[in-house]
Amino acid sequence: MPADFPIARRMHDIQPFRAMRILVRASELQAQGEDVIHMEVGEPDFPTPPPICEAGARFIATGNVRYSGAAGIPRLREAIARFYHDRFGVDVAPERIIVTNGASGALMLALGVTTNPGDEWLIPDPSYPSNRHFVRAFEGTARSMPVDAATAFQPTLAQVEAAWTPNTRGLMVATPSNPTGTLLSADEVSKLNAAVRQRGGIMLVDEIYQGLTYGVADHTALARHDDVFVVNSFSKFFGMTGWRLGWLVAPSCHVGEVEKLAQHFFISPSTPAQHAALAAFEPATLALLEERRSIFRDRRDLLLPALQELGMRIETEPQGAFYIYADVSALADNAEELAARLLEEAFVATTPGADFGHHRANEHLRIAYTTSHQRLEEAVERMRRILHR
Amino acid sequence: MPADFPIARRMHDIQPFRAMRILVRASELQAQGEDVIHMEVGEPDFPTPPPICEAGARFIATGNVRYSGAAGIPRLREAIARFYHDRFGVDVAPERIIVTNGASGALMLALGVTTNPGDEWLIPDPSYPSNRHFVRAFEGTARSMPVDAATAFQPTLAQVEAAWTPNTRGLMVATPSNPTGTLLSADEVSKLNAAVRQRGGIMLVDEIYQGLTYGVADHTALARHDDVFVVNSFSKFFGMTGWRLGWLVAPSCHVGEVEKLAQHFFISPSTPAQHAALAAFEPATLALLEERRSIFRDRRDLLLPALQELGMRIETEPQGAFYIYADVSALADNAEELAARLLEEAFVATTPGADFGHHRANEHLRIAYTTSHQRLEEAVERMRRILHR
Repeated sequence: MPADFPIARRMHDIQPFRAMRILVRASELQAQGEDVIHMEVGEPDFPTPPPICEAGARFIATGNVRYSGAAGIPRLREAIARFYHDRFGVDVAPERIIVTNGASGALMLALGVTTNPGDEWLIPDPSYPSNRHFVRAFEGTARSMPVDAATAFQPTLAQVEAAWTPNTRGLMVATPSNPTGTLLSADEVSKLNAAVRQRGGIMLVDEIYQGLTYGVADHTALARHDDVFVVNSFSKFFGMTGWRLGWLVAPSCHVGEVEKLAQHFFISPSTPAQHAALAAFEPATLALLEERRSIFRDRRDLLLPALQELGMRIETEPQGAFYIYADVSALADNAEELAARLLEEAFVATTPGADFGHHRANEHLRIAYTTSHQRLEEAVERMRRILHR
Repeated sequence: MPADFPIARRMHDIQPFRAMRILVRASELQAQGEDVIHMEVGEPDFPTPPPICEAGARFIATGNVRYSGAAGIPRLREAIARFYHDRFGVDVAPERIIVTNGASGALMLALGVTTNPGDEWLIPDPSYPSNRHFVRAFEGTARSMPVDAATAFQPTLAQVEAAWTPNTRGLMVATPSNPTGTLLSADEVSKLNAAVRQRGGIMLVDEIYQGLTYGVADHTALARHDDVFVVNSFSKFFGMTGWRLGWLVAPSCHVGEVEKLAQHFFISPSTPAQHAALAAFEPATLALLEERRSIFRDRRDLLLPALQELGMRIETEPQGAFYIYADVSALADNAEELAARLLEEAFVATTPGADFGHHRANEHLRIAYTTSHQRLEEAVERMRRILHR
């Protein structure tokens, strides 16, 4: 590599997913014939619901797979608006819904239209790692707010007020949260948004795991606020990871800017994925997704006490997504080393906390229940043998 | 809109596609029952080749539509490498090929890993408008190099040498070029790259319209250079616009950085599109695409003299893509007004030069031959009636 071959400074601050290293090593072990149980994976183990696949295949059979408008096909934007109405009783104008290349595309657009160089975004630590890298990509600064089990791994009003500076542009929260599976209540969202708006800032609410909650009702920030950015996805609840489709709901005043940026960044979202997603809101699909939700709930109910019995601490019950963020400090000095040991000796893959931030990251593992009941039981048994021999 | 609701400064510099306004107005006219001939559209009128659609549908039928690795599925990266070998006799390591969300994703990654705030990229004017906006998005500066028919709308070595400053990070070129349909020879690419590398810069070669050349042989910058970024796409030659799939070939030293950024920006490219694209290189598909290329050539051969007869000046023969960039200064004072007149009175949609830059933009229209022979003849006849009544 020529010494003068330029690499942008931002790349020094942008870290690879550690989960990728786990995945590569897990694949090596599998190639050697080992039976690896995957609890590191952030995608449902269920296939895409058949009605969605069928709608996608029907569209592709026409051959007429052209660009759509940058904000997506009107029918899908309207279908999403109807979904908000039917599920939450909320009216969202279809014009405010921009269909994107996964939630990744939605995050990129929301941050691209709002973030100047030097602007700070308040981001809980731990949280989804790409969030801070999107901020960095646009030359903003991700300011971490350490959160832990005492506040359900969610930022408090006092914390946001204390962390706010004249350079702060906004606050990002996620409910349910990746990696912790914890929620903010509608009231908490409203209090945070009031504080943010009072300071002239913006709140971005990640609702990517919406629909995957257990024992508590779903909600959306849009029910009370039309001045927030909401990011959502067809990947998790709807089981469409590989299709790469999500959406952004923007405040009306930002829609034109978002659409302009989407034209240049993406031209349009995938049209096969958009036509497939039209079937995501059909009653048959929603019924299947509800069955899956109850399976996820059963898995959580199995795994949570089992991990606690192994000596992991989970002080706040995860009520959403498909993750348990377990405090493993009683079992090991270093979560990353523990993850390596669990993989090498028990063939159980998990994600070390360091993927999600710095705050007590070395004391935590993210354990996904994106595998069957039987495999989860097997994983617990294997971990028990390693941890308590 | 609350006065304090923040919009990033970059958005003031990022312009919407003017072609979109044309498209909206054309749709209105169609809704009123008018028969609009579309010569403003940058996508082939042919459907996606059936073998590609069939491969995509077969994959979707498995239901197993999951994330791939951020750089794409190994089989597709290898298929692209084989394509370079079979078509151009060039060996490109599959590891250097990163499959992306359209060429848009490839441009974003190449610029994201190389561009610091304040860095300048030399970009021909006219050129694909999003290029300069990608540079702006990462807080770089797009420095326009005015080009015209005298140099086939391509920058010269002298021009690049004169425009280079200590802040220049690199040079972007496109061959074939959008909007002009003109090419750089392999020798010209090499000379430009030598000058750029000598100055410690990077060359990014847009080969998105590769395969669509008429009467001249195709080439790729990769045949002679492994220190350039090459952007390519399944949209144009392969007829896969709506699938959103392209690729980036990066210098080896940048591959790790590109992959890291792709993880965060996109997670992965669309897996249905990737599995569909595996069929793009099959002999039956390539044979069909060659037939389409000869149809595009016939259309160009029809349209070029016809436009010249109408009084448009086209001094350098477009040899690629599916565009003619016509100097209309003998027919109107202002190309944008002419485009509006052609649309309103002749129901012929074209794209004004202002979409592609500033340099003599008001003297040019981009006219796409992405419609049938018969419709092109009809369009010429309608324009004749308006221009010479």
